Amino acid sequence: MSIATHPLQIDLAAYLFMRLHQLGIRSIHGVPGDFNLVALDYIAPAGLTWVGNANELNAGYSADGYARIKGISALIIAFGVGELSALNAIGGAFAERAAVVHIVGVPSMASQRAGLTMHHSFGDGEFGRYRRVYKGFSCAQVNLTDASTAAEMVDWVLRECLVQSRPVYIELPTDFVQAKVSAERLGQDIRLSLPVPENDEVIENAAIENLLRRLYAAKQPLIIVDGFAPRYGISEETDELVCITGLPTSTTPFGKGIVNETYPNFHGDYAGAAGKQVYMPWVNLCDLIDTFWLRVSHFFRPGDIVMTETGTPSSGGRKFVLPPQTTMINSAIWLSIGYMLGTCTGAAIAQAEQIASGTRPPSSRTILFEGDGSFQMSAQSVSDMIRNRVDVVTFLINNDGYTIERYLHGMKAKHNWVQPWRYLESPWYFGAPRDDPSYPVFTRQVTTWGELGEVWGGRQLRAGKGFNMVEVVMDIEDAPSSLKNLVLMVQKRNAGGAGGEEG
Amino acid sequence: MSIATHPLQIDLAAYLFMRLHQLGIRSIHGVPGDFNLVALDYIAPAGLTWVGNANELNAGYSADGYARIKGISALIIAFGVGELSALNAIGGAFAERAAVVHIVGVPSMASQRAGLTMHHSFGDGEFGRYRRVYKGFSCAQVNLTDASTAAEMVDWVLRECLVQSRPVYIELPTDFVQAKVSAERLGQDIRLSLPVPENDEVIENAAIENLLRRLYAAKQPLIIVDGFAPRYGISEETDELVCITGLPTSTTPFGKGIVNETYPNFHGDYAGAAGKQVYMPWVNLCDLIDTFWLRVSHFFRPGDIVMTETGTPSSGGRKFVLPPQTTMINSAIWLSIGYMLGTCTGAAIAQAEQIASGTRPPSSRTILFEGDGSFQMSAQSVSDMIRNRVDVVTFLINNDGYTIERYLHGMKAKHNWVQPWRYLESPWYFGAPRDDPSYPVFTRQVTTWGELGEVWGGRQLRAGKGFNMVEVVMDIEDAPSSLKNLVLMVQKRNAGGAGGEEG
Repeated sequence: MSIATHPLQIDLAAYLFMRLHQLGIRSIHGVPGDFNLVALDYIAPAGLTWVGNANELNAGYSADGYARIKGISALIIAFGVGELSALNAIGGAFAERAAVVHIVGVPSMASQRAGLTMHHSFGDGEFGRYRRVYKGFSCAQVNLTDASTAAEMVDWVLRECLVQSRPVYIELPTDFVQAKVSAERLGQDIRLSLPVPENDEVIENAAIENLLRRLYAAKQPLIIVDGFAPRYGISEETDELVCITGLPTSTTPFGKGIVNETYPNFHGDYAGAAGKQVYMPWVNLCDLIDTFWLRVSHFFRPGDIVMTETGTPSSGGRKFVLPPQTTMINSAIWLSIGYMLGTCTGAAIAQAEQIASGTRPPSSRTILFEGDGSFQMSAQSVSDMIRNRVDVVTFLINNDGYTIERYLHGMKAKHNWVQPWRYLESPWYFGAPRDDPSYPVFTRQVTTWGELGEVWGGRQLRAGKGFNMVEVVMDIEDAPSSLKNLVLMVQKRNAGGAGGEEG
Repeated sequence: MSIATHPLQIDLAAYLFMRLHQLGIRSIHGVPGDFNLVALDYIAPAGLTWVGNANELNAGYSADGYARIKGISALIIAFGVGELSALNAIGGAFAERAAVVHIVGVPSMASQRAGLTMHHSFGDGEFGRYRRVYKGFSCAQVNLTDASTAAEMVDWVLRECLVQSRPVYIELPTDFVQAKVSAERLGQDIRLSLPVPENDEVIENAAIENLLRRLYAAKQPLIIVDGFAPRYGISEETDELVCITGLPTSTTPFGKGIVNETYPNFHGDYAGAAGKQVYMPWVNLCDLIDTFWLRVSHFFRPGDIVMTETGTPSSGGRKFVLPPQTTMINSAIWLSIGYMLGTCTGAAIAQAEQIASGTRPPSSRTILFEGDGSFQMSAQSVSDMIRNRVDVVTFLINNDGYTIERYLHGMKAKHNWVQPWRYLESPWYFGAPRDDPSYPVFTRQVTTWGELGEVWGGRQLRAGKGFNMVEVVMDIEDAPSSLKNLVLMVQKRNAGGAGGEEG
């Protein structure tokens, strides 16, 4: 019960964006559309910057990357066509626990109630179709159609986003963007604005005792760190546990980078049976890549964000030796190729904000390892990077196609080859400024160790400012027999118990 | 009951692709992935060509375009990440009735039954998630998990695709790709392989009589032709009706091109209230565009496919005067920007097949009118065009951003500007061959009528062979006051009955 009889009223969109700002969000991802245009007016006044992605899938990917660095992000796109294009990105954020606030500008409730034949629909007056889809791809959903409860609903859904570290879905009808809501709740921290479920002390102590008993009894204890640790905000505690106990420690590929890899008790990565049979053969793909992934480790610095696309880069990246406070991003289970280029935009924006606020070393860089086939999936992310003057170093591993598919099935198949782009033209094609000292552009193709050493050691890549792209040309014909294990295992799984043996 | 005791057995994938070939499909759209790789081996032996798109959304768009020209198309992509990325394209095909056979390579039934933690899933052993999504975006679905009924199920689902002229969804588990099925049914035309529901003669005659009575009684009858006529295969009958009756006739924007526009009784386009208030102001956007759309009509030839992207091009395109046998593609209700560039690939491939088979004039061309913001959405379609050596003429209308959004709300807003690309570099960036006489490349920027006249009259664009791109630079500041109606109407609808009046 508020004492104030006439509490301050503000527009709903202002309330929503001010809440996002309070949570640490400074950049809003998205694509404009007629159902979200008025809401976009509230972004700048709330102290937020518009990213403006070239398409919705890349906007979703980028928001995911921003969330993995800063803990939470927001995305605003339009009803129907926009949100469907972003679904794969939101699915990935759901599967791998990135906290993305997904705001959709939807037709006015007046139009919806009248069952109008609207564009971006099937013309049948049915407006619940996309909401139902997203129910399966977000942890909480709200449709802001009641001004009297809207502020409370916003708080609830944002809190679910934080607590579950998964996407939430907000429908904002055009005729509620400017609905008046009380600003009163803004004075309360959103994390405290709803009751927090506390752990039962008895159960918690029993669990800890049980854990310790097993640990002390173990002959050969091993800590395995997985990638969800940062989602629950316990990365530092995890690192501290490993440091203090001195217990032998490994990370899964998804958890790589959470623990300081220079500790004497750090024993590299662990990925179960799949590690030996599925991933490691990639590391030995050819002469250059045998040592490429180890050698590149000397290039990394504390604070760097290191990102490896699914495929050759994510497999090779398991060989990295990371300095402390490095953040590594790879995909654990969603494995949507094209994701890493898109998410790199958001990660680099988030990093720039952290550098500006003093929470990340000024010399830290965003370093992306990308494949050629995956680059093609979401190439216009480079446009988003340039539009936002993002600092990024990209190593494009060019092996002329979908290498992993090629080894799985069809070494010579036409469908595993991709159209040969002129990748190093990317910054110019996507509109990078020429000769602007505030945003330098560097591109180089390398085919030998000498050339690679030259660019690694060069001033431009060491600084990592502006847009930098190194095309690393690898020879796919130079593959070792160790890949046979991979082919056999995946073929066996795909063939299941049924079907023939041909192929 | 078959007399044969040992009917010929073939692999299920062979059966499926042979059926697609029988329906007139010659090119298969898609993206390779580990769950569809073995199935792709069956494409070439069935007499089909692999298109190989750069990403799944563009693959879906391209398949939609192919279907609008040839009546039906097929798309094969992978489980989860692939199919979610294509959802917006399939939604558009559903809304606007393009018959796309959407085949998804899914994990083996052995893996699914075991509830394995698979990539492209949430890791929860749940494999029905994407199938449930597609239930809302396709008119029929099958999961081919029983070899004894698979051939019959394939026939059923393909027939639904044809009859309803809408996407169907086929799940093909990796362990059923090579399941043995009887080839016996392949001898039967798929259109006759299941009982055809016939119209009730009494009802049909009564309906016709009713229609004729109303027509003869009308003082001012008018035929309005809409875009679904070709979906039911009655374009020629419609044209004949208009020709024979001599009744005054209009087409909706979506139906444009179905009726010969040189008939004396053709009265241009009709789009209800929206026509005057929403669309037509675009036609008058600036001096160049006032007459651009009329003048370009002289460039068209019988047999051409003319495509206009949603926004400035689709509105301006309503002014076209089309020669007979022109096919026009625009979006009726889905209005997903980026669609037209993607769908152009498939339409041009379909056209080439028709020219090769003698069903379309050899001199006919594919002509695309595209906006800059929409081009950026799906730009890697240009790569698909070049990979497939597609002949296409693109007019890129460059007005520096999302013009329609700009007029609706936010003339100076940062979010309505797009990153300025170097569009004319497109063919080179996406890997077009240099100096290959079998695939010429032509690019030109025009800003005046003289320059435009020069390229229209030039040999290269008249032939329309190879990759051709003309960047038409328009000045967005040069807008007439007639656009005020548009702004007022859409603002009013978006504001609904609730919300404030600001903005």
